[in-house]
Order: sequence, then structure tokens, then C-alpha cells
Amino acid sequence: MDSIRELVGNRALQDRIMTAEEAALLVRAGMTIGCSGFTPSGYPKVVPAALAKRAKAGEEIPVTLWTGASVGPELDGELAAAGCIRRRYPYQTDDAVRRGVNAGTILFSDLHLSHCAQNIRYGFYGRMDIAIIEALRITPEGGIVLTSSVGNSNVFAECADKVVIEVNTAQPEGLDGIHDIYSPENPPHRKPIPITNVHDRIGTPCLYCPPEKIAAIVPSNVRDSQRPLAPVDDVSRRISSCLLDFLSAEVKAGKLPKELLPLQSGVGNIANAVLLNLAEWPSDNLEVYTEVIQDSVFDLLDMGKVSFASSTALTPSPEGAAKYYPRLDEFKNRIVLRPQEISNNPEVIRRLGLIAMNTAVEVDIYGHVNSTMAAGTRMLNGIGGSGDFARNAYLTIFLCPSTASGNKISKVVPFCSHIDHTEHDVDIIVTEYGTADLRGLSPRERSNEIIEKCAHPDYKELLRDYRKRAEVGKGHEPHLLGEAFSWHERLRQTGSMKL
Amino acid sequence: MDSIRELVGNRALQDRIMTAEEAALLVRAGMTIGCSGFTPSGYPKVVPAALAKRAKAGEEIPVTLWTGASVGPELDGELAAAGCIRRRYPYQTDDAVRRGVNAGTILFSDLHLSHCAQNIRYGFYGRMDIAIIEALRITPEGGIVLTSSVGNSNVFAECADKVVIEVNTAQPEGLDGIHDIYSPENPPHRKPIPITNVHDRIGTPCLYCPPEKIAAIVPSNVRDSQRPLAPVDDVSRRISSCLLDFLSAEVKAGKLPKELLPLQSGVGNIANAVLLNLAEWPSDNLEVYTEVIQDSVFDLLDMGKVSFASSTALTPSPEGAAKYYPRLDEFKNRIVLRPQEISNNPEVIRRLGLIAMNTAVEVDIYGHVNSTMAAGTRMLNGIGGSGDFARNAYLTIFLCPSTASGNKISKVVPFCSHIDHTEHDVDIIVTEYGTADLRGLSPRERSNEIIEKCAHPDYKELLRDYRKRAEVGKGHEPHLLGEAFSWHERLRQTGSMKL
Repeated sequence: MDSIRELVGNRALQDRIMTAEEAALLVRAGMTIGCSGFTPSGYPKVVPAALAKRAKAGEEIPVTLWTGASVGPELDGELAAAGCIRRRYPYQTDDAVRRGVNAGTILFSDLHLSHCAQNIRYGFYGRMDIAIIEALRITPEGGIVLTSSVGNSNVFAECADKVVIEVNTAQPEGLDGIHDIYSPENPPHRKPIPITNVHDRIGTPCLYCPPEKIAAIVPSNVRDSQRPLAPVDDVSRRISSCLLDFLSAEVKAGKLPKELLPLQSGVGNIANAVLLNLAEWPSDNLEVYTEVIQDSVFDLLDMGKVSFASSTALTPSPEGAAKYYPRLDEFKNRIVLRPQEISNNPEVIRRLGLIAMNTAVEVDIYGHVNSTMAAGTRMLNGIGGSGDFARNAYLTIFLCPSTASGNKISKVVPFCSHIDHTEHDVDIIVTEYGTADLRGLSPRERSNEIIEKCAHPDYKELLRDYRKRAEVGKGHEPHLLGEAFSWHERLRQTGSMKL
Repeated sequence: MDSIRELVGNRALQDRIMTAEEAALLVRAGMTIGCSGFTPSGYPKVVPAALAKRAKAGEEIPVTLWTGASVGPELDGELAAAGCIRRRYPYQTDDAVRRGVNAGTILFSDLHLSHCAQNIRYGFYGRMDIAIIEALRITPEGGIVLTSSVGNSNVFAECADKVVIEVNTAQPEGLDGIHDIYSPENPPHRKPIPITNVHDRIGTPCLYCPPEKIAAIVPSNVRDSQRPLAPVDDVSRRISSCLLDFLSAEVKAGKLPKELLPLQSGVGNIANAVLLNLAEWPSDNLEVYTEVIQDSVFDLLDMGKVSFASSTALTPSPEGAAKYYPRLDEFKNRIVLRPQEISNNPEVIRRLGLIAMNTAVEVDIYGHVNSTMAAGTRMLNGIGGSGDFARNAYLTIFLCPSTASGNKISKVVPFCSHIDHTEHDVDIIVTEYGTADLRGLSPRERSNEIIEKCAHPDYKELLRDYRKRAEVGKGHEPHLLGEAFSWHERLRQTGSMKL
């Protein structure tokens, strides 16, 4: 408790210092809680754990939980296990939360990550009772220095009645100064977001909220629960190689500059593999405008291949954190963390002209993409920022292996069992077998391109057969609705999509 | 030929004046042609007709045809009947074109209207050979004064090798000065689009292109083929009344200002009825930021209910044109016509905070929307601007009657047979039975809201039954994939979705 006083530079706020258990008492049943955190980084750890403890001891404390995106087990996992999460917005990757979502006991709404902040400000989801924000320190002027993510922290602090701050001494001090906090006005008073370059700073390095709203300041010393990265497998390597061949051809055709355009990349192993491969790209000065910075972007910054990276979170693996967190001061003038409302903003994405690369759960023969649900019903994680980027990018690319589960599942299907991105939003699909370029093609041409370039050999003939029989009935986008989902049904009944 | 000389103020261009037949000879097989015109207004009429005549006489002249959106029969209809349209972008409403699209003989790609211009500039669809642009006159400085729409004319003139201009003396002179032409730079040099108010003018009243590209100037005297509006029927009136009740409640709840926010409304009879109803709205100074101005907006401007309207086209009915075209000078300081890249721009739509109201072909119980296809396969018109507005609006509303074809078709179905707008993009659904407010709801809650508020009584029990049986299998968004399209199959087999 003593050491934290040094980190609360604003003296008037020092009397709000208390324990996690005391702060957790501010949360009551039925409240809406907005927590910092994005793709397990920078989320509060000790107050949620204290709240879960109360619930596990028998108290009923159902709450609505908002975050930036996914958060670690100390927050989502603990609260879900304690039965505290009644509603959850806007994205999750936690096993216990996912079980609740799919059982219907946790009411989950899957939102575009750029939409959250404005819709909260508009009052569409009701009041925000308490914001719980992880911070590095509080400045003498009362500025809250955030940690490894920004996410929705700015809007939570703006809109909540009370703000609880976890000052986490386990976060690297090098994060100080990396943030750029900017909140747009509500319409009709909104102005252009003045970002015209990836590196533009348009806000303040600290988050400010009226000091009287700060109800508790709690010491914490728990590291982000970083997720290890799988070693790059052969399929990811082949996908990534197809993609780089495609980008090279675009440069050659004059459709992309040789230093490309700012890169956006989804989270995960394929995304990481793709970016790693850019180490071989023949030009330096690449730029990144994305929502998370994984190990590969640190590596590319370190080798000088990437000149600047903008995102809303740092998400290194444990190894990445061990390597790069002590050296953050070296990178700080080449990284900025923005609110997710800005990192994922359609206006900025379209203006900068991003190359958006995201992973698909499945794609169909006409180029619709499923990003969220297994067999059309079971939520995996959520749409995240994929829609923000896919709709507005210069070039929209979806990546996926052609099959899963030892070829029992084809990722190229007649009709996506759930559609998150429509044919109107998808330019390029890449699997380990090749690249389908869908730009300007009619649906019939797209289906040919996707089946022949992207499908796994085990499923090509089946897909051709579906298309051929569907085309007998004519139509702009020929389908046999009676068997459009027969592949998913077969999988459910026999354990395989194969005949 | 003599009178047109007066309308070509630039003397150096007067030697390019020729007949439609002569100009049509510039078009050769395999070319890509970009024509002015948006939702049958301001499209070229005489050069396409001359081209169709050549083709009907036996010449093979397949071309790729670009427009802003739908155009009149002199262009789409004539060229389709003559077998000239090999490819078509980005939207159509013509019977002959639709037949070709659904037969697979016309390769149609259904694009977001805001995406066309930039993707043409990026070179994604290959070269643009000839632009054919309808104009009111050419100024002494060589400025092209457009007519009743802007659409994609600016980008066609920029990118085409040659430009053909139809100077149409049947268009009202009052259009002179109504346009505001602005083209954004390509990334990475793009700047913020400096519109912060509906009435902001940011460009030039004329379209400029290098005079040496102007290959032909052709006289024309054919009016736009305006479509009559159906009288407002009872269902449209009830939909519109539900919508106004909802908007009033939003104002009361403090979620909308009493003068609302800028209104966007799709094209057609329901849209027109909804806007007409706003004559009763208790506040003046409403604003419109949309893609077409139909009769109702003229009426609202005329009665002072709407203070300003921005769009990319004027689309009055024949009666509306007879009433308002002679009085355009009165309205000119309260109307602006912009390129569709700007009228439909995500950046501007989100900044201004529109209320977007578009018509759905069908909706499903989880809030996905089909805007384009009958029974998942047969193209009707296209997505148009509905995606541009739905994704980026302050409030996204879809309207539709609860049934069609004498109740044989339910517009609320278990699973949309084609998805153009996903659950992530739909706030409100309105039918003549009521309003479903989906904001913040989980899929299970959404299905309850949609079935109970919006479905037709004839189909409610069937929908409840589907949902109930689907929920046995659990999942975030419960479905029975084996029967998800059974309603559409039943319709195909029996002529009705009823059991």
C-alpha cells in the first residue's frame, strides 16, 4: 500500500487507495461494468478476482461485463466460473465464457469492435455503472497512464458513474508514453479524425476523467496472461507463401506500391506466420495499422523492416514479452496504442488504404465468410475487428487452411453456415493450395476461382458437383437450398464432411 | 446541331460535336464503358441507342458496362436486348438485364456503391476505355455541367481514355449549379473528406477532365425515364407509422435530438411513404443525407420541414418532375448532388450520424438481412448503398412488409436465403406489425423480439416452433441446419411457405 502512493502522483487521489476486496464492494448485482483490456492485455486482475471470491462464497452478483476484446482468466474465467457474468460484450476467447455463451446462460452480443464506443456514448446499451481500468500510474495532474492496451478504456471512463483503477506494478514501465487517447464527439458535432499517416498522434498520452469519479485505486502486481504462439506449421507457411506471391504480383502489376500499404493482420498463429514471412519482403519501411501487435511485428520493427506500428494492444507471447518488454524504450517512438474506436475506425482504415488480412472459420464458393461460428450455431470467439477492416480496407484478404480435423472438415463449403462478411466485402481468399482473386468477378466466376484455387483436393470434385447441379436451376448465385448445409449435417451425423 | 454549339461554351471543343451514330463508332467489342446515371437519372440515352442499333444490325459488340446505379431502358434495356452487355457493374433494375444476370449470360458483380470509384481508380477492374456522360452544357472553361445525377461520372471521366458527352436539352436548366464534384486522392495520400455538415460544399460545380480526352459531343433531347410511384398502401402506411412511433420514443428517451439526425432512405414506395409521414414530425429543420431524392423529399423541402438535402441523384416520379423541375431554382440552395463515393461514404455517414432506413427482401430470426436475392439465387436489383449506410449509420433500420404474395411468403424466415447485412449491422427491424429493437440483445433475445414484434400472425407459431426445436441443440445462435431453408424449399415446391 505504501509503494503505490508513489505511483499516484495526484495527491488528492491518494485517499482513494484501498484493497481489491474493498473496491470490489462497489460492484453490486445488476450493474454494468466496463473493464480495460484487449486481446488479453491490460485488463484488471485483482478487483475481478475479489468480486469472484464474493460470488463463490455465495453472493449472487450477476453483472453485464464490457471489455475491449478478449481478456485473461483472472477476469473472464474467474467471473464466469463464479456465475457473475449475465451479459457479455463485445468479444471473448475464454473457455468458461464460451461455454456459458453457447449454453445460453451468458447473453453475448457479438459487435464490431469499432462500434462499441460510440453506441455506448449514444446510450444504446443503458448506463455504465463502473469502469475498472488497469493503469501504470496516475500523473500529478490526474492523468491515467494505461498499460498494454487501450481498447474501450476511454469510453468506459467517460461514461461510467465511478472509476476503479488497478495500478499494476508488474507491467513494464516502458509503456509510459506509448498511448494516444482521442475520443470523437457525438454527431452532429463530430469532426474528421485527423489521422493521415500511421504515425500521427492526435490525442493525449494519458486518459483523463473527472477526479471525483475515481472511487478506488487498488494495487496490483499480476502480469498479463500472455498466450504462447504455436510454432509455424507447414500449412501456415504455405498460406503465407501464397499470400506473399500474390502481393508481389500486385506490386508488379502496379496495383500496390513496393513498400505496400499499411498492414492489418488478425490475431493468431496464421497471422503471425504471415507477418513473419514479410521479413523477406524486398522493401523496408513497411507500416502496420492494426488492432494488436504480436511477436512478429516486434521482430519486424526490430530488424527495421517495419518503420511504424499503430494498434490498440500489445499482445506478445511470454517469449516475446521477455525479449521486447525490457526494450520498450527503444520502440516507443515507433509504436502507438490508440483506442479501438480509432485503431478500427472505418474513416481511418479507408483513408490510409490498409491491406487487411484476417482468418476465416470457413468460406463458401461465392466468397461469403464465416468468422465466428462452428456449424452455424456454436460461437467460437466473435467477429472482433475483422468486419471493420474487411469492409474498409484497400485490399481485403481472408486466410484459412483448406481443411481442418484431419481433412474431415472442408473450410470451403457450398454455403457458409454463418455469414459475417458477405461477398460484397471479400477481395482475396488464400489457402495453402492457392489464392482466389475475386475482384470484379460474378458469383459463377467466383465459385470456379475458389474451388479450383483454394479447395482441398479431397473436396474439389464434391464442390464442382454441387455447383454443376445448382447451375441447372439458373439464378445469379445458383444454390440447391435443400442441400446447401448438407455438408455440415453430414459432419454432425458422421463426423466428416466427406461422402 | 447548331443549337448545341451554344451549349458548348468552350470553342475548342465545338469541333467534337457529332451525331450519336458517329460517337457510337468509338465503342468497339471488348471495351469497358462507364456511363453516367444513378437510379434512372442523368444517364446517356442517344449514344447507347445508336450502339444498340449497330448490334441489332448484326455486329457483335460485347462490352463491360459500368454505371452509377440503375439507368433507364434507353441504356440498360436497349443494350441488353441487343446482346451488348457482357459484364455489368454495380447495380441494375432493368428486366432484360436482370434476365441476363440470372441466366448467367450477363456477368454481374454486385458492389457497395461507395466502393466502385476507389476500386476503379486502384485498377482492380482493368482499364476504362470510354466514359459516356450526360451533361447540361460545357462551360467556356471546359467544365462539364452534369444533369440529374452525379453517380460515378467523376471517376469515369478521370479514368477513361476517351470521354463522350451527351448534351441533353430535355434536362431542366435549373440543375446548373446543384452539383458538388470532389474526388479523394488514392492512399497513401488521401485526406479527410471535409464534410461536417449536410450542406457543406467541398468541390466544384462542374466536372473537369483534360479537354483532349473529350472525343465526342452529341446532342440529345430525351427525358429521364422516370418511374411512377405507387399510391401509398395500407401496409406501407402502417410500417411508416411504427417507425415514427419508434423515433418519437427515441427522442423521448434522449437517444435522439428532436430534430433527429440526417436521414437516409432507400429508394421505392415504402421509403417514400416513410418520408412522407415525416410531414407530421413535430420539429422542423430535418436534414437529409442520402443517395436519391424522391418526391417526398421535394415535398418536405417545399413545406420547410426539411432544411437541406444531399444526395447523388434526383429521382422524382413523372408527377414530381412536372411539379418541381420547373422550380429547381427555388431549391438549389437547399439541395446538393455529390459523387456517390461521397454521398455513400462511410467516413461521412459515420461522422454525420445518419438514421439509415432501407428496405429488406427478407430478415431472419437472428437479425440477418437479405437485400438482393429471391430464394437465395435470383438477383433482384443489387445491394446498392444499403451496406454503406447500414454499417456506418448512427441507427440502422430495415423496413419490410411481414409477408408477400398474399401471405404465401413470410419475410421473416428461420435463416435468410442470402445475407447482405449481418446481425452485427442491424439495429431495428420494422414491419406493419411492429418494431424489433435488437440493440445489445443476444441472438436468443433477438429471435424472440423479431418473431413477437415483426412476424405475421400466420407465421408466428411456425417460427416459435423452429426456434424452440433449434434451442434443444444449444449454441449461441441455435439453428437446425437441416431445415434452415425448408421454408424456401416449401415455397418452391408448393407455392407457399405455409405448412
